[in-house]
Amino acid sequence: MAREMREQPGVLAALASRRGEIAERVRAVRPDPLYGTVLVARGSSDHAAIYGRYLLEPATGRPVALAAPSLSTLYGSPADYSGFLVVAVSQSGRTPEIATVVERLTAAGARTLAVTNEPDSPLAAAADAAVELRAGSEQAVPATKTFTAQALAFAILADALGPVSHADDWARLPAALDAVLDDPEPAESVATAIGDAPGLLTTARGYCYPMALEAALKLKETAELLAEGYSAADLRHGPTAVISPGFPVLAMSTSGPAASDVADLVAALRERGAAVHEIADRPDVELPIPAGLAEPLAAIVAVVRAQQVALALARHRGLDPDAPRGLSKVTLTS
Amino acid sequence: MAREMREQPGVLAALASRRGEIAERVRAVRPDPLYGTVLVARGSSDHAAIYGRYLLEPATGRPVALAAPSLSTLYGSPADYSGFLVVAVSQSGRTPEIATVVERLTAAGARTLAVTNEPDSPLAAAADAAVELRAGSEQAVPATKTFTAQALAFAILADALGPVSHADDWARLPAALDAVLDDPEPAESVATAIGDAPGLLTTARGYCYPMALEAALKLKETAELLAEGYSAADLRHGPTAVISPGFPVLAMSTSGPAASDVADLVAALRERGAAVHEIADRPDVELPIPAGLAEPLAAIVAVVRAQQVALALARHRGLDPDAPRGLSKVTLTS
Repeated sequence: MAREMREQPGVLAALASRRGEIAERVRAVRPDPLYGTVLVARGSSDHAAIYGRYLLEPATGRPVALAAPSLSTLYGSPADYSGFLVVAVSQSGRTPEIATVVERLTAAGARTLAVTNEPDSPLAAAADAAVELRAGSEQAVPATKTFTAQALAFAILADALGPVSHADDWARLPAALDAVLDDPEPAESVATAIGDAPGLLTTARGYCYPMALEAALKLKETAELLAEGYSAADLRHGPTAVISPGFPVLAMSTSGPAASDVADLVAALRERGAAVHEIADRPDVELPIPAGLAEPLAAIVAVVRAQQVALALARHRGLDPDAPRGLSKVTLTS
Repeated sequence: MAREMREQPGVLAALASRRGEIAERVRAVRPDPLYGTVLVARGSSDHAAIYGRYLLEPATGRPVALAAPSLSTLYGSPADYSGFLVVAVSQSGRTPEIATVVERLTAAGARTLAVTNEPDSPLAAAADAAVELRAGSEQAVPATKTFTAQALAFAILADALGPVSHADDWARLPAALDAVLDDPEPAESVATAIGDAPGLLTTARGYCYPMALEAALKLKETAELLAEGYSAADLRHGPTAVISPGFPVLAMSTSGPAASDVADLVAALRERGAAVHEIADRPDVELPIPAGLAEPLAAIVAVVRAQQVALALARHRGLDPDAPRGLSKVTLTS
């Protein structure tokens, strides 16, 4: 996991350099007129898809949905998907459920695109076109480089389909990732502070919200910590009841419209005694990331900080982050 | 909370009896042609909306999305919502964020419907039409009768917009709810078994999946238990790593296409030593509900069983379920 995390600056630089070629492929698949976009994924890939919806709705100018795969696979929903672009995301491309959904939505009129690390997979074969991540083989069970590559693929897709705020920042992303990866001490300190806590909440809003979900999943997978991710807006609707003094919270934010909302929540949680650890693009937080990147790309840097915390906590707890209890690399949900 | 839970059979019977009048209002708002439906909600209402998406996609024959409210409120997404039906759900109708989203999506071309318990609320005023729940005032902070009324409102909306599997079962729902509410002992036994566990996972698939999310939220709010809800498909993608021997899991299922998938997961979790408590429409489980209802309505009965478990666990832990720590009834997220 540590080695694959370290590969991220190179993998993402290579993917960004292919954005012209990827954009051509995406534009060829886009229906015209486009009524909306539907994203299909599970697990970490689902978090990349949630990140993608924040980019694709403004870029395409049409609503974006996350699919409920069971509507296709279990309930055989006969809905009409003509006019819809479907983007299915799977690292391995071998989760049968995801390929089945793509086949059924193609039959229902959708145009379909696969985002995968395996161009020879059943998913790539089922879709009208595929975007290859070319992240190299991922051996550790917790997805790291394929997750950030999936997220960057959505940033490229959005750029291909309409105006985005990050169009000039591609070249600055790898250095920001290097800066985080070269500085593991903050994550180690936070891992020591979390210690043997039985639970944790992660929270964020906007582009960082899916990164908070991914951080929670990484903490569950690698450190066996029951960590749940919440939108800063939803956290106020009930879940705060679990926060007793000393309860650990990982808050993530980057400069942008969501920052003040997360700051208000962090202040309120600290007032109630929560142990809030912040990832933000400011030097005054425990887990800083470089400032100045456009918000969507800064969110990718933020999740790498969270990967570091998960890895450090797994080591602190004496666990093997590469082979979590009860998990295998490809999930054969059908 | 106990009193409001007990009101559910009457509230839901009254709501179902108004389905003809509600259907007329819904059909008048539906765009023609309809490209898709977008649901807007937070907290418990969001779980009702997720339930609604499983019903509305087959009934309308078009994709259904859950909105990301911050795209409207924070990022000012300029997407075109013409051809889309927007359904916004809020018990109080006074969460400013939800009314703002409805205003902006109306301006973006959507036709909008409010589902609320407060017909004089800002949300009802912002929408093209409103469906009143008429559940009576809800005093306890954890939503119970308004949640099941919101879910039933979606079952009525779906019936108004296309063919559904539960069209003949309306009259049988109140008796099934009474049977559960008259039989609190199973929930009390399970609460005793959960005891002072620091964490729990809830799981289900299909119509019961949003009910598992709602069960987890109720357990957090009332019993201060860090409970997270997961799709049975997603649980296999990583979160199982947190399950050590004795870890409590609440699994929910009803007869239908998702039942065998949940049964397989329950068997696998038990093999790993998890303490799985099952809500199902079978007599051989710890938390039975009556058999024979169509799956969408059985899911509403299942969530009432889960409310009972949350209430019993709060009492077992010496907590006041009506006034959870740090929460107020109306959440003023903007």
